[in-house]
Amino acid sequence: MARVPRPQFQQLGVIGCGLIGGSFALAMKRAGLCKRVVGYSKSPSTTETAKKLGVIDVAAESALLAVSGSDIVLIAVPVAATEPTLRAIRHLVQPGTLIMDAGSTKSDVAIAAQKVLGPLAAHFVPAHPIAGKELSGISHADAMLFQGRQVVLTPLPENDPHLVQRAAGAWAALGCKVLKMTPETHDAAYAAVSHFPHLLAFAYFHSVMRQPSGREFMDLAGTGFRDFTRIAGGEATVWRDILLANRDEVLHQSQRLRTALDRLEHFMKEGDASALETVLRQVADARNRWKPAFFDAEDGEPSSHF
Amino acid sequence: MARVPRPQFQQLGVIGCGLIGGSFALAMKRAGLCKRVVGYSKSPSTTETAKKLGVIDVAAESALLAVSGSDIVLIAVPVAATEPTLRAIRHLVQPGTLIMDAGSTKSDVAIAAQKVLGPLAAHFVPAHPIAGKELSGISHADAMLFQGRQVVLTPLPENDPHLVQRAAGAWAALGCKVLKMTPETHDAAYAAVSHFPHLLAFAYFHSVMRQPSGREFMDLAGTGFRDFTRIAGGEATVWRDILLANRDEVLHQSQRLRTALDRLEHFMKEGDASALETVLRQVADARNRWKPAFFDAEDGEPSSHF
Repeated sequence: MARVPRPQFQQLGVIGCGLIGGSFALAMKRAGLCKRVVGYSKSPSTTETAKKLGVIDVAAESALLAVSGSDIVLIAVPVAATEPTLRAIRHLVQPGTLIMDAGSTKSDVAIAAQKVLGPLAAHFVPAHPIAGKELSGISHADAMLFQGRQVVLTPLPENDPHLVQRAAGAWAALGCKVLKMTPETHDAAYAAVSHFPHLLAFAYFHSVMRQPSGREFMDLAGTGFRDFTRIAGGEATVWRDILLANRDEVLHQSQRLRTALDRLEHFMKEGDASALETVLRQVADARNRWKPAFFDAEDGEPSSHF
Repeated sequence: MARVPRPQFQQLGVIGCGLIGGSFALAMKRAGLCKRVVGYSKSPSTTETAKKLGVIDVAAESALLAVSGSDIVLIAVPVAATEPTLRAIRHLVQPGTLIMDAGSTKSDVAIAAQKVLGPLAAHFVPAHPIAGKELSGISHADAMLFQGRQVVLTPLPENDPHLVQRAAGAWAALGCKVLKMTPETHDAAYAAVSHFPHLLAFAYFHSVMRQPSGREFMDLAGTGFRDFTRIAGGEATVWRDILLANRDEVLHQSQRLRTALDRLEHFMKEGDASALETVLRQVADARNRWKPAFFDAEDGEPSSHF
């Protein structure tokens, strides 16, 4: 399959020097895709650390100044901060500049970009790299974070196709498998396989910790509980924003879960061992066939999805 | 702290030569706690394999014959098969014989033992070793399976205290931390931290796999989904039996989960970012402080719990 052309950039502007922004900066430089990185974070000490660690070359004093002179910009801020950031930078978006975000929800970002940027939304290609670490923050930035991972692009109708291709080419050159889909499909899919299970894990852990003897019960828990609740250790502000931004799809998934749970509990109440076993077996078989969406990083071409 | 005395047995009878029964046989011989293992499985080919693999020394032709001449017996059959097994062996329980099961639920087993064994229930010490593997069956039996794990004993009021001490001593000598509690406390605790999360993982996975585009959505899922759904790959017959045997406690946990989920969803619907964040943060902090119930196998003394 044909690879997308490897793009070349002069200057990367990173807004939000956390794990994702910092890792993108390191990866872009390591891959030789850009010559210079200008970075900005809301907290001056974070920007300073990013410069000291060599993650960025130049510290910018504002989001707007990080965009000035940059031909590629990554906005790697909490989901709820994307719209104000777009508002802050819109006056310095130059022809040819590629702007991306890295948020976990895409419909809200697409709508915000169209509202705030108007015709300049042609420059903004919403992106969601499916990568992360237990530990957040600039000090955990890692040039290999995106290697072998998926990135979802949800291009806007007004996007310049050439910029979408440059976006896909950049992520592919960092070792990502590039998928393209609509923001709506993205949000429905990730509500199902990421956002709702996070809500469910938070709710489950909360129900245990708050019950009488809950703490004692948890002292008895083993590896199943450990793995099932791992995602309930996620960062509160990140998940607050995602759950609010993708609320309707998450609530829809909750309805589906409640229906499935009702069905299994009905079999339990009826003592219908055979019906219960049938569903458990269907699930276990499907689960044991399922493989996580990583890939051998040999093959970095973009592919359309849905 | 005083260790319980290390007991000595002549002959171990294992009924159910699967992962748990086979591993117990290997561990007991390795620790020098018994001289001979007699094994029985419902399937003659399993018993034969256990003998070929050297897990058991003698293949018995019935559960009753596996008990004959044994001064320690482990019943390691599916939860629902415990009562018929007790019925099958009761005529050969000799004075001084220690009988244990290894099931994940304990109230049902305690009641079955009292009903079926009558005064012989003095010999039966219900046990639940918190150990397992992804792979079941005699071919995965492992002498180290119980090392560093917990075992819960739920002694019956009629138990001979000397036999309870021998039971505790045997598990401790295999490297287990021995906990004692009532069958009711055991079932409430494991409903909360094991049985209900299994039901929830099965229900969640089922709700995703059965929805339109569910399979495509799962192609996009990553490590969070992988860990959250790992326990939905458990063996259908095992979980069917556990969910039915501990139904009331599991349904009680489901009510608690639904209440916690309702609360979080209420904050989402109201757009109450601050209340949502507060709960997510409480959960994440508690989850990140929690440690699984393993222990350094240095210290094998039994401890009372609750």
